[in-house]
Amino acid sequence: MHVVTLENIQDARKAIAPFIKCTPLVQSQFLTTFCGCPLFLKLENLQITSSFKPRGVFNKLLHLSAEEKNRGIITASAGNHGQAVAFAAQKLNYYARVVVPKPTPKVKTDGIKKYGADLVLFGENYDEAERKAKELARKDGCAYISPYNDELIIAGHGTIGLEILETLPNVDAVMVPLGGGGLISGISIAIKSRRPDVQVIGVQSQSSPVMYESLKAGKIVNVQKVGNSVAEGLSGNVGPITFEIVQKYVDSVVLVKEETLRQAVYLLWTHDKQVVEGSGAAAVSPVIENKPLFKNKRVVSVVTGGNIDSDLFQSILKSEH
Amino acid sequence: MHVVTLENIQDARKAIAPFIKCTPLVQSQFLTTFCGCPLFLKLENLQITSSFKPRGVFNKLLHLSAEEKNRGIITASAGNHGQAVAFAAQKLNYYARVVVPKPTPKVKTDGIKKYGADLVLFGENYDEAERKAKELARKDGCAYISPYNDELIIAGHGTIGLEILETLPNVDAVMVPLGGGGLISGISIAIKSRRPDVQVIGVQSQSSPVMYESLKAGKIVNVQKVGNSVAEGLSGNVGPITFEIVQKYVDSVVLVKEETLRQAVYLLWTHDKQVVEGSGAAAVSPVIENKPLFKNKRVVSVVTGGNIDSDLFQSILKSEH
Repeated sequence: MHVVTLENIQDARKAIAPFIKCTPLVQSQFLTTFCGCPLFLKLENLQITSSFKPRGVFNKLLHLSAEEKNRGIITASAGNHGQAVAFAAQKLNYYARVVVPKPTPKVKTDGIKKYGADLVLFGENYDEAERKAKELARKDGCAYISPYNDELIIAGHGTIGLEILETLPNVDAVMVPLGGGGLISGISIAIKSRRPDVQVIGVQSQSSPVMYESLKAGKIVNVQKVGNSVAEGLSGNVGPITFEIVQKYVDSVVLVKEETLRQAVYLLWTHDKQVVEGSGAAAVSPVIENKPLFKNKRVVSVVTGGNIDSDLFQSILKSEH
Repeated sequence: MHVVTLENIQDARKAIAPFIKCTPLVQSQFLTTFCGCPLFLKLENLQITSSFKPRGVFNKLLHLSAEEKNRGIITASAGNHGQAVAFAAQKLNYYARVVVPKPTPKVKTDGIKKYGADLVLFGENYDEAERKAKELARKDGCAYISPYNDELIIAGHGTIGLEILETLPNVDAVMVPLGGGGLISGISIAIKSRRPDVQVIGVQSQSSPVMYESLKAGKIVNVQKVGNSVAEGLSGNVGPITFEIVQKYVDSVVLVKEETLRQAVYLLWTHDKQVVEGSGAAAVSPVIENKPLFKNKRVVSVVTGGNIDSDLFQSILKSEH
């Protein structure tokens, strides 16, 4: 197994620079006051396709062999990774298929189709869609683009860590939403390689605590997902690469309540004027749930995306406060 | 009458730097494709109090005499200026009163009260609130803080122009929502003093075309406002200072339809994940209405604020597309 290095992330940054945005890092005045710590939002909802995913995907796709490019690519996705693959494939002129579970929000399936990829709706959840995509990849001899368990994807996502350290050198802690672990793997390598003193904290929903339970068990475990989450983007599986990196580099993984995710979506809408999906809102939720823990710390929350379903968004606006 | 100079704006920038944010300038991928011109959003909805207003207000309040500070200040506002005055007064420890017309959105009156100012609800529209505020100021010997017709306010708002030129030196045109004209006065002086080749365009709603009609008449005229606007922030009056500056520095003032303002709010929500109020959305509306006019031009739209009423916002999400 290869290990992702700081140098890989620096290379990724150069490779993907023509295709992605260096997103703003903005202090949230409200959350700073509300939580008692200077809290900064890394606004990946302003990234191309409205999520951080194109960072890793471009890095991966730019490294495919000529043969792989000709055969086309296939992936499975809860939505945002799929949109990024579709967008990058269109830019680079590859044929792409994206398998998504049937309950995926329309805003995400529309995004995938908009960029010209073939959409395959399959299964009731991410696991079933992933199995299907891998099966199709084997059958057709296509490259399967993992959303998380891939060194090039991880290195691409890690570029967020470099941007944070450059914009806010005196950061104390970085909070990262965690599904399959691709994002936090990249960010934690980037940050710990340069600044081992900066805390990197992963955030999962109580309804999908796969990495949390795996870390506790010391090995990858299967965890039954509990009910529907507003953060379907956090429902990825843990793979051997990300599990090892998270074990090594991440300070802690915390669980947050579904109701806090909803509250965070509402607060970011009301006070920061940002449209954020449930999994993106996970990045500020631990600070809301446990203010004393972060008191006076300079916290960066990686707001991973803004692709929230219109109906869900409106139901949150209506029900909160 | 004093004239506002580039130097005044540079001085303002230094004075207000500790209190305000240098907001991000972000390219809108969707609007770039949709409109056929590279379109950038200057995100003042991410400013303190979620509008650009604190820029001018801090500059004004920092220049009050000791006596004026002791007596307290008074202002009239459609909402955002009032929030900025309340916020700045709290920071600087002044007593402030804000007169707002009765139909002001709750999100704005809540903001004013939150920062500890005394809220006076008066009149059916901005004009009536303004008259009341000036009357109270005279009666109590307080400084009246005009939202637009004031050199220090204008110089503070002009700092946006400096930031735009520094972040995007090859900009071709800057679109600015126009109510009383304080914002566009500052921005146009900043931009035209340095780069006379950059177009500065003011945007008004068809339902409140005061500056548009005044320019046509060659003098300040009274214009009956037509119906309710989703852009109550554009309902300010024209004063002699801003009228003269707009005549001299602004290339053109255009009118946009109310339905375009609603569409723009929706598009900025859907694609750019930004919560923008009607008057803020005015900055992208001319590009939506008249795409050929801006083809291949590098356009900056000043997204002035995000304080949109929750009910109005939800009604736009529901009704559009």
